[in-house]
Amino acid sequence: MEQSKLPLYLKVARQIEGQIRKGALRVGDKVPSIRGLQRQQGVSVSTVLQAYFWLENQGWIEPRPQSGFYVRMPFSQLAPEPEFQRSRSVPTEIGVGDLLNEVVNSIGDPEKAPLGAAAACPSLYPNQKLNRIIQRITRENPAHSSRYDFAMGIEMLRRQIARRSILYGCNFSPNELVVTCGGMEALNLGLRAVARPGDVIAMESPTYFAVLQIIESLGMKAIEIPTHPRCGMDLNALEGAIRKHRVRACISMTNGHNPLGYVLDDGYKRNLVALVTKHSVPLIEDDIYGDITFSSNRPKTAKAFDTEGFVLLCSSFSKVLAPGFRVGWIQPGRFLDTVTRLKFINTLSSPSLPQVAVAEFIECGGYDRYLRGLRTALANQTQVFSQAIAKYFPEGTKISRPAGGYVLWVELPASVDSLKLYRAALAKGISIVPGMIFSASGRFRNHIRISCGYPWDDSLERAVMTLGNLCGL
Amino acid sequence: MEQSKLPLYLKVARQIEGQIRKGALRVGDKVPSIRGLQRQQGVSVSTVLQAYFWLENQGWIEPRPQSGFYVRMPFSQLAPEPEFQRSRSVPTEIGVGDLLNEVVNSIGDPEKAPLGAAAACPSLYPNQKLNRIIQRITRENPAHSSRYDFAMGIEMLRRQIARRSILYGCNFSPNELVVTCGGMEALNLGLRAVARPGDVIAMESPTYFAVLQIIESLGMKAIEIPTHPRCGMDLNALEGAIRKHRVRACISMTNGHNPLGYVLDDGYKRNLVALVTKHSVPLIEDDIYGDITFSSNRPKTAKAFDTEGFVLLCSSFSKVLAPGFRVGWIQPGRFLDTVTRLKFINTLSSPSLPQVAVAEFIECGGYDRYLRGLRTALANQTQVFSQAIAKYFPEGTKISRPAGGYVLWVELPASVDSLKLYRAALAKGISIVPGMIFSASGRFRNHIRISCGYPWDDSLERAVMTLGNLCGL
Repeated sequence: MEQSKLPLYLKVARQIEGQIRKGALRVGDKVPSIRGLQRQQGVSVSTVLQAYFWLENQGWIEPRPQSGFYVRMPFSQLAPEPEFQRSRSVPTEIGVGDLLNEVVNSIGDPEKAPLGAAAACPSLYPNQKLNRIIQRITRENPAHSSRYDFAMGIEMLRRQIARRSILYGCNFSPNELVVTCGGMEALNLGLRAVARPGDVIAMESPTYFAVLQIIESLGMKAIEIPTHPRCGMDLNALEGAIRKHRVRACISMTNGHNPLGYVLDDGYKRNLVALVTKHSVPLIEDDIYGDITFSSNRPKTAKAFDTEGFVLLCSSFSKVLAPGFRVGWIQPGRFLDTVTRLKFINTLSSPSLPQVAVAEFIECGGYDRYLRGLRTALANQTQVFSQAIAKYFPEGTKISRPAGGYVLWVELPASVDSLKLYRAALAKGISIVPGMIFSASGRFRNHIRISCGYPWDDSLERAVMTLGNLCGL
Repeated sequence: MEQSKLPLYLKVARQIEGQIRKGALRVGDKVPSIRGLQRQQGVSVSTVLQAYFWLENQGWIEPRPQSGFYVRMPFSQLAPEPEFQRSRSVPTEIGVGDLLNEVVNSIGDPEKAPLGAAAACPSLYPNQKLNRIIQRITRENPAHSSRYDFAMGIEMLRRQIARRSILYGCNFSPNELVVTCGGMEALNLGLRAVARPGDVIAMESPTYFAVLQIIESLGMKAIEIPTHPRCGMDLNALEGAIRKHRVRACISMTNGHNPLGYVLDDGYKRNLVALVTKHSVPLIEDDIYGDITFSSNRPKTAKAFDTEGFVLLCSSFSKVLAPGFRVGWIQPGRFLDTVTRLKFINTLSSPSLPQVAVAEFIECGGYDRYLRGLRTALANQTQVFSQAIAKYFPEGTKISRPAGGYVLWVELPASVDSLKLYRAALAKGISIVPGMIFSASGRFRNHIRISCGYPWDDSLERAVMTLGNLCGL
């Protein structure tokens, strides 16, 4: 079909397509706004909309909530996803302790290219806004830190968290919440409240590696439940493990799983809660990435379907606001008294000033406004990283398609030893996380986790290219 | 002897004595400075000095480091000290858990007269200075909280703590220190690094009640070593317990013991360390009150005598600077790697901003200047409270003579049930701590701990009077 005979909307669309093909518009770039394009081309709004719908259907662009349309990775260029690999579930003492420590000590090193730690670039956080709030607090309430606060945390913060809990299908009272020193303390208190040394804890496979460290430090055992890279733990396998191995508690990340990135649907969450409730197995739900999933609607938590109080919901502002604030929290359901007691014994109470600052930021509406921008930025970054990995990594590489958070789970060809890759990358000044520390039984020997927390730039591109080359050695 | 025939210095001294007797100068008041009195009376400096030495010998006044002379409680009016009561040492599972929680929940209540919590009055802390430092940090380093810090804590703070460690006989490297969320986390990490569930932990009797809660929560057992109210644990009894009950670790407060208030001497500390080292039993030394002992020379820690790394020294800025900062630390000796690992697992890292603020306050010299004033204020308050208790409490009451910190340990007549007293006092709006929560085996049923953290005023006097009356009911 000649250009002149094309419908108007298609002419407009093909221009945009051409710009993408030539690289004038790249993955993650925003295409012109509807009104902007309308004026520029002298066409109607509906023509522009038709053009954009066509481009979206062809997989060139995608809408982002409250932000417009963005260039996306073409369907044809998407790397395949990691596959669901069944595995046997048996209780395991954690056997990767030393490696875990080696990795943990390396991934925070600010001298390395930051593909290791699951942390966003400091410039993405609302530092100036938080600092203005802190300055005001120091002026208006000079004695902000001169008392021991109650173990549960500052009431003002618990009220704001309770108010926001409606967004994820809950309706907490401030008195059901315990503020913690980050999500890590929340997970600790939750586990210690429901299980004892020797007990068996069920979890996704792969799972967040610190969970394995906590379980090891408490003398508990891990049982890994086969987990689909996009659909979560196999609930039949979970029920089998509960029946066979007397599982004492279950840990799960339902929104923005680390490292898989999935967001589970409401039906799954309902079934999961029904299952653990039926067996009286407490579920520790880690929702630390729940506020930075990419959809415009904040997904529900499994906790939303908890009628009996068996779900202990853990979260934190560390991934989204200020890692150095160490403000996390837990809604421990029926285990509230025990968790409160453990909080007092563990750290007595959380620091006051960061709690008040977070509470005021939420209260004034700043937090939710800021989240919208952060979500878009992270969705964008994750996609650009994914495209680069597809480009530079060897044939046969598979990449997760996260629906939240800022990490990618990358399955390398079976011949690649990710531990060797991790060490070779470190020697080249690049930090990544080898897959096997996400497993109690040393699975995922050809997987790595890549953090997409930093805005894409040339040095990151060089790092990804170097990694790709190292895979081939 | 007629007034006119008295030596000049004695005339001057008798005038001051008269003012004290009449109540013009009260316990805790500062007497005129040497130069001031010299000018006022037209006498020589040496006459004034002679007069003050006479008054000191008579027990009317006492010198306070770098501050001058203060009116003290006359020897004759001093209540006797609690006595050393031998008791059998057997490993015990903690049996006062529920009472502990009841008390812990009540003592922080700001509505009650503050004789319960071991916390100083907010106005005693250097809030304005700390706030100015915080404001500067937010301006000069806006991204102060936008990274995960290393588990060990911010290097700048560890350097300042290491620098100050010379004051208490140590010479730490910053790399031997782990910053914690208050002294409570330090004790937790220390205990978890050296002992396992089921292990036996030796401690003073009475001991800080949260130690008992930590031990209970970790499934360990406590063994109480007979403890002299001024001279610490009976080291023979400690060695006997180590031999007989396979003690896995020992916890001790050597400076400003809570609740006894003693400061142990260097010889004792050397012997204690030699003993635990001989038996390879780690010693967790809680030095949280070490910076606010009343003598002008900061006492050494037992850690100063530790050549083999068996002492884990724990401390915090919560008692002296800002409870709400939650900045504590541990020097774990040979257990450094384990403690660092546990810190990461427990809370990942400590909040950044309070660490930087404390580091800057120490670095500029503000901390040590401030401490001098605080020590004097607390020594004063402790003495005034002691006098009031002697005045209002029933015959037979015995009161500790603390050399540091801000609590008094009060032994009531045997007929008084301190648990009933605690509840009756709460009902009257007064918070105190009943003695039995300081013991794993429910000892000290006629003891209470009184906090002297708030400057003396009429409402506190009424509270002490009310307590005295309740003792008689």
